[in-house]
Amino acid sequence: MNPFAGKPREACGILGIYAPGAKVARLAFFELYALQHRGQESAGIATSDGRIAHIHKGIGLVSQVFNEENLHHLQGHLAIGHNRYSTTGSTYLRNAQPYLIETALGSLGVAHNGNLTNAPSLRQDLLNKGIGLISSSDSEIITQMLAGAPGSTWEEHIAFFMKQAKGAYSLTILTREAIYAVRDPWGFRPLCLGQLNSKIQGWVVASESCALATIGATFVREIQPGEIVRLAQDGLTSCQGIEAAERPALCIFEYIYFARPDSLLEGRSVHQVRRRLGERLAQEHPVDADMVIGVPDSATAHAIGYAHEASTPFGEVLIKNRYIGRTFIQPDDRLRRLGVALKFNPLPDLQGKNKRIIMVDDSIVRGNTSGPIITLLRRAGATEVHMRVASPPIRYPCFMGVDMATRDELIAARMEVDEIARHLGVDSLGYLSLEGLKETVEQGRTGHCLACFSGEYPVPVATGTDKGMFEPE
Amino acid sequence: MNPFAGKPREACGILGIYAPGAKVARLAFFELYALQHRGQESAGIATSDGRIAHIHKGIGLVSQVFNEENLHHLQGHLAIGHNRYSTTGSTYLRNAQPYLIETALGSLGVAHNGNLTNAPSLRQDLLNKGIGLISSSDSEIITQMLAGAPGSTWEEHIAFFMKQAKGAYSLTILTREAIYAVRDPWGFRPLCLGQLNSKIQGWVVASESCALATIGATFVREIQPGEIVRLAQDGLTSCQGIEAAERPALCIFEYIYFARPDSLLEGRSVHQVRRRLGERLAQEHPVDADMVIGVPDSATAHAIGYAHEASTPFGEVLIKNRYIGRTFIQPDDRLRRLGVALKFNPLPDLQGKNKRIIMVDDSIVRGNTSGPIITLLRRAGATEVHMRVASPPIRYPCFMGVDMATRDELIAARMEVDEIARHLGVDSLGYLSLEGLKETVEQGRTGHCLACFSGEYPVPVATGTDKGMFEPE
Amino acid sequence: MNPFAGKPREACGILGIYAPGAKVARLAFFELYALQHRGQESAGIATSDGRIAHIHKGIGLVSQVFNEENLHHLQGHLAIGHNRYSTTGSTYLRNAQPYLIETALGSLGVAHNGNLTNAPSLRQDLLNKGIGLISSSDSEIITQMLAGAPGSTWEEHIAFFMKQAKGAYSLTILTREAIYAVRDPWGFRPLCLGQLNSKIQGWVVASESCALATIGATFVREIQPGEIVRLAQDGLTSCQGIEAAERPALCIFEYIYFARPDSLLEGRSVHQVRRRLGERLAQEHPVDADMVIGVPDSATAHAIGYAHEASTPFGEVLIKNRYIGRTFIQPDDRLRRLGVALKFNPLPDLQGKNKRIIMVDDSIVRGNTSGPIITLLRRAGATEVHMRVASPPIRYPCFMGVDMATRDELIAARMEVDEIARHLGVDSLGYLSLEGLKETVEQGRTGHCLACFSGEYPVPVATGTDKGMFEPE
Amino acid sequence: MNPFAGKPREACGILGIYAPGAKVARLAFFELYALQHRGQESAGIATSDGRIAHIHKGIGLVSQVFNEENLHHLQGHLAIGHNRYSTTGSTYLRNAQPYLIETALGSLGVAHNGNLTNAPSLRQDLLNKGIGLISSSDSEIITQMLAGAPGSTWEEHIAFFMKQAKGAYSLTILTREAIYAVRDPWGFRPLCLGQLNSKIQGWVVASESCALATIGATFVREIQPGEIVRLAQDGLTSCQGIEAAERPALCIFEYIYFARPDSLLEGRSVHQVRRRLGERLAQEHPVDADMVIGVPDSATAHAIGYAHEASTPFGEVLIKNRYIGRTFIQPDDRLRRLGVALKFNPLPDLQGKNKRIIMVDDSIVRGNTSGPIITLLRRAGATEVHMRVASPPIRYPCFMGVDMATRDELIAARMEVDEIARHLGVDSLGYLSLEGLKETVEQGRTGHCLACFSGEYPVPVATGTDKGMFEPE
Repeated sequence: MNPFAGKPREACGILGIYAPGAKVARLAFFELYALQHRGQESAGIATSDGRIAHIHKGIGLVSQVFNEENLHHLQGHLAIGHNRYSTTGSTYLRNAQPYLIETALGSLGVAHNGNLTNAPSLRQDLLNKGIGLISSSDSEIITQMLAGAPGSTWEEHIAFFMKQAKGAYSLTILTREAIYAVRDPWGFRPLCLGQLNSKIQGWVVASESCALATIGATFVREIQPGEIVRLAQDGLTSCQGIEAAERPALCIFEYIYFARPDSLLEGRSVHQVRRRLGERLAQEHPVDADMVIGVPDSATAHAIGYAHEASTPFGEVLIKNRYIGRTFIQPDDRLRRLGVALKFNPLPDLQGKNKRIIMVDDSIVRGNTSGPIITLLRRAGATEVHMRVASPPIRYPCFMGVDMATRDELIAARMEVDEIARHLGVDSLGYLSLEGLKETVEQGRTGHCLACFSGEYPVPVATGTDKGMFEPE
Repeated sequence: MNPFAGKPREACGILGIYAPGAKVARLAFFELYALQHRGQESAGIATSDGRIAHIHKGIGLVSQVFNEENLHHLQGHLAIGHNRYSTTGSTYLRNAQPYLIETALGSLGVAHNGNLTNAPSLRQDLLNKGIGLISSSDSEIITQMLAGAPGSTWEEHIAFFMKQAKGAYSLTILTREAIYAVRDPWGFRPLCLGQLNSKIQGWVVASESCALATIGATFVREIQPGEIVRLAQDGLTSCQGIEAAERPALCIFEYIYFARPDSLLEGRSVHQVRRRLGERLAQEHPVDADMVIGVPDSATAHAIGYAHEASTPFGEVLIKNRYIGRTFIQPDDRLRRLGVALKFNPLPDLQGKNKRIIMVDDSIVRGNTSGPIITLLRRAGATEVHMRVASPPIRYPCFMGVDMATRDELIAARMEVDEIARHLGVDSLGYLSLEGLKETVEQGRTGHCLACFSGEYPVPVATGTDKGMFEPE
Repeated sequence: MNPFAGKPREACGILGIYAPGAKVARLAFFELYALQHRGQESAGIATSDGRIAHIHKGIGLVSQVFNEENLHHLQGHLAIGHNRYSTTGSTYLRNAQPYLIETALGSLGVAHNGNLTNAPSLRQDLLNKGIGLISSSDSEIITQMLAGAPGSTWEEHIAFFMKQAKGAYSLTILTREAIYAVRDPWGFRPLCLGQLNSKIQGWVVASESCALATIGATFVREIQPGEIVRLAQDGLTSCQGIEAAERPALCIFEYIYFARPDSLLEGRSVHQVRRRLGERLAQEHPVDADMVIGVPDSATAHAIGYAHEASTPFGEVLIKNRYIGRTFIQPDDRLRRLGVALKFNPLPDLQGKNKRIIMVDDSIVRGNTSGPIITLLRRAGATEVHMRVASPPIRYPCFMGVDMATRDELIAARMEVDEIARHLGVDSLGYLSLEGLKETVEQGRTGHCLACFSGEYPVPVATGTDKGMFEPE
Repeated sequence: MNPFAGKPREACGILGIYAPGAKVARLAFFELYALQHRGQESAGIATSDGRIAHIHKGIGLVSQVFNEENLHHLQGHLAIGHNRYSTTGSTYLRNAQPYLIETALGSLGVAHNGNLTNAPSLRQDLLNKGIGLISSSDSEIITQMLAGAPGSTWEEHIAFFMKQAKGAYSLTILTREAIYAVRDPWGFRPLCLGQLNSKIQGWVVASESCALATIGATFVREIQPGEIVRLAQDGLTSCQGIEAAERPALCIFEYIYFARPDSLLEGRSVHQVRRRLGERLAQEHPVDADMVIGVPDSATAHAIGYAHEASTPFGEVLIKNRYIGRTFIQPDDRLRRLGVALKFNPLPDLQGKNKRIIMVDDSIVRGNTSGPIITLLRRAGATEVHMRVASPPIRYPCFMGVDMATRDELIAARMEVDEIARHLGVDSLGYLSLEGLKETVEQGRTGHCLACFSGEYPVPVATGTDKGMFEPE
């Protein structure tokens, strides 16, 4: 049982550190730890001391993959790191990142968050050049493209790659002497820069600012769309690897669900934005009720905002089992009929009062997790359940690195809102409008990727997907 | 890093199932899963099909210990199970429960929650009888005492044990043909009974009612102090193994911290009691502030109650990393000076408003976790931090199975409240009064164990402890 | 695939060390290593520093069970150790030895080689006394009997045990301050004493003298039947725990197969005895042939002796795969028909000369491994295969700790010699006579246990066996 | 402790199977099992069913790496397999073979035995072409060269590779539809072809013929130097990928030590050749003595030959512990002074007779294992020890895939024979002459590689070695 089932899955968390004179593997560990919510399948750190590169990666949580012994071997003052997201079924170490290879320019390590929309043709190009590939991952493609690009500097190699690649990529790159931080011209996935300014001096890059805060680094700024930042002995240098897209396209789901509430995105607190989404939702879909609850834990801020705006008390009714690890043991049919409920239990004291409930969730993807929760609330005595969703109906799949669902699986791609309401068994259902989402999030800022709601993809998307031609070990 | 450091540690969760005609191991798994908060060190299930007993136990979370293969081998319609709590340092499989042995009356399995205050003398009695012991655990003592007790029925054996034993014990016992549920005469640790009434018919016993709800069982009642409940082919029978104490002594910390908020204790919702503790706290220690926050996650209900009573907005400021597993990797001094903060990050948008914060926690044990949180809040821009604690100062150690701390480690045993406030760096500090706690929790019900606050132990406690004479593997 | 299939299986190797001022765990490791041939299922060492006892044991070879880290924790100058034999199917850590328990007289560790013929009634006595047992092993019985025996000294406890116990037991016992070495009144299983006389001073006990040689200890003497040797601060003391049997009964199979050829038994080299068995076999069953071969590796010495006596060249024809580990992967029927031969291959150059082969084996148990070897020889071009067996036909099962076979499985219990010859497909078959065996081995020494050949058991044997009443984890 | 320390180490065993209609993974397992002596570090099998390729590989012995479950997943009627040799220190899964990648022509798997002498420049060529490499192994170089070679058929790719590569390579190659067997133009490493002719029909390739015998396949012939054999639906086809060298150069050490005695090389039994080497050694270096012994187990055949020729009795004195696994636990200095001897023990009955011993070994590399054995023999009572070595002094390192030693480590590169004799403490020392070796082995056959004795390398060798530029995980 994947505790994150039913939610869109983020493609990864990445980081980079350059701190001359320090051994940075432990810092990298704590940064990865703070980015654990972006990926729970595997974790890895690659380091360099300016001469030799080292790597350790493994399947599992950051806390499972690393120990004092393997951290000890990760010598050096340069590091990149990666958390990979959780997929169902079996997982392969060969898909763990970072990738570390040797090239004509020395060691090269890459950590990648995103998804290349033209990966199949890039892959074919490499195969046609006579390069054998050991996996079917984008990241191996990126690494081999960087290795084989023309130019005598890594900046040239990276810029060449950026000209070929389409789609989403935030990268941290380790070379013998430098760390590079790269973001695609649309800025689909976040990436920010921080500074270490105390006993340890240096630069830090991370998917989210919460990882900077965790290691005591000061937030400096975001990496710009199309930018290549280089961190090396001569300090920070920056260049534009490719012209930024006319309109940036940061994934709006970072605000809605992915990012940790204590991260800053585009200068704003994610938590604050979520509260405001809840407030706007309350304005758009008011309803008379006794209590507002959030689906734990991701919708708490949205629900607090709704409750505040609606002047309806915020409360807790659903208790989430906090200790669940991943288990493949499922209730069998017999147990399912017993009503075995693993993730949530309702509070037993719902009866008798506060019977009309507004249940706020951040989003609905397939719609298969909301139903059982609503049933739980009904059994617990709720006379009315009004569901409010702090984002618009998701009608289109994502091609930029979010494992959401296929179009057929998206409930809002198949049903109208009132059908969904009936399907879920709620008394009313209100989604935040696209307009409401945009106004709340954008506030004068330039564009975001709203493709999963609008179907308007910032880049052309490949319709076919590259099927693996061999089964990895 | 133990994610539960700084909190009192519960001694275990236990369960029993009797469901003729069903294979109950999977049900036992889901019950254990729901009781995971009571112990994360090891997990085990023993079953019997009326002829042969089976057992599997291991170190780790329930989800790590069990898989389809080992569940498959746990044949039978009788089961007991156990979650053991998390201690620091190394853990030994030999301490994992249940214990399963062969006796002159057939197989005997025991799962135990609690602590015998006269364990050293009971242990010495067994050694003097010429019995060798492989561990230094209470549970082996109980098992051997049950095996060696006089009488031709298990009820006689159990009653004999109850006459010798002092202190806290809630037990589930597996014999060839029956499940027994036993509670000490004071009822220190909780234990309740439920019924399966659908496709699967049978009886269920669990430390907390949340585990009954998880598997679709209906809550029936609590096991009474001193009671022996027998579940077997002829249904449920009950007898009084020993006279109940004059005054029951359910551990008050079950209400304050241990139990899951969705459990019922003595007919009341734990969540509701926590809200009321927060309300009473607000009455006792009001203060003018901009926001009430709870230390996540255990103090959320208390904080909501406080906020409601004080008409001060409830908010979130501290974000807890939800994905932390146990790691022994610690920030070194260098990183600690950087301010590496693993468990909590403050929201970045505290600045500029809501600067006066009321921080509600459920309890303070050693006082070493509150300080860093307060520092975080100050750094994040809080101009005032008022700490409110929804229980009285803890001044006395527990001898009934809660791993709290030694007397010397208890901050409130060494300092007055104003000293603690200075030590923690808060602008004000208010503890709930013992009177307030009692009135809120008791509400006409008979007694609870308040010894950690009052020093009045319901049973005499041994001052020396039995030091292990050999180091187990 | 068990590489030892088809051979009788020894019940264990044991050791004890007492070396004041030294840390002896590493010595114990190397002794166990030298005794690996007596048991490959599990290995364990228990130590004591005079105050605290330590233990580590695990499933697998000595080299797999121990590493620097766990050896490091085995503090102390007293040690006992144990290798357990390989059984088919699953193996349980709970059966691994030594056993270490706490008793009224302090820690008690026991390592056992042998089999108690009255184990079922001893076990029932313990259960009747109200003692619960966690396994169905003899060794737990011994440990609990020692713990519960009357007397104020361990010698009294041990002597009391010896009066109750029937059958085979060589023991090493660890108490807080002493090592004891004990042998049953018949001396069924070997046990010898050595001395460390260089930098490290002290006493060593081992199942075989080869283990003394391996750690540089000097062989002193064998432990006598019925003797209790105590090694402690006041040096070596000895007493008779029970009167020695009228006629000793060292297992004759130690000479034939079990012991390492470089061990001494009763003052003679095992290798030498095996050569002489081969010589006697040649005298009893001469045959004209071109070459004598031994079934690798256990029959090499016997074959060399035969060849020498018969003045027929000794040669090699069968090559044994030396790198086989235990695998449960078996040729399926299809592959078996292909002639997949895992353990032995014949040399390809047999053709054309040396076509008449005398194949010497040490013993035949079930007869199911000889047939395929003979087929291999035939396919390889042997025109005649004469099998010679350096021991008499095995017609009776062993009850003293050797896992040989049930009576029904013993080929010589079901067939006459000429039938066996036809069954195996050999041109002639000659077994050593019982007279020949006795004369060669005994040479004026008192008796040996020859029960598997003669059916004359030195002690009465229990016909029923104690079936486990619960299935261990 | 590596049980093979002190011996030259073979670079690997390889195999290939093509058997239409059969699932061949189990056959491949048993072949690998029979080739275990050529490599104990890791094992792997890759299969193809004509559409999808599968692979499983792991660290450890064949019996440890494979189980029913992973064999089950290796679908298909084409297979290649690989055993990798044992190096000291840590081992990396990434070095395990076969390599399996995707290429423009579909899946490609490679198993390699040998060493490319121009690997550094081939590697640089690949890097210069912009290909990133994940390991520093020859095998990845070969795989990428095959992937990137020109031509529309795999034969063209392979032939192109053969024109670039220098040095030793025996390869089995898996493509979607065919198995290829390839040998370098000198035929440095062995590779032979067999046929399955019963229920399962097909072709088998293996490093040694013993692996053919093990699975019931008939030996057909050796793969010729420079030959490419293709096994596919249209049967066996063969072409010359590159002209054979004027003079073949099969590694002479295959006869002396590497190959299993039951293998055939160039039509002769390895065991027979070893006996003859021993006979020739006796002719060249006779000495009056009481007994001839071989250093177990590799020199047994040589010693039997010596004894036969010298008419001196062959005997056993050194007993080898057969159960040693790899352990990193070493005797400390204290124990070393005790004379802790792990690998060999002398028989205790040496005293008194047979005091003059001829000890035959197959070769001396560093000379550090012979000394302790000789000391053992002296302690055991030998009055004279005459060492005879069935190969000439090794004075030059190997560059064709045998991990022998650096020049400095070779004792015969630093000392004359009489110095070595004094160093080892023997009464006399005789090496087989190069002439004697050649005459015994060659017998009219064309050349062998004798470079380690003569310094005449069949191909130019690179003096520098490619240092790894990054440390693999």
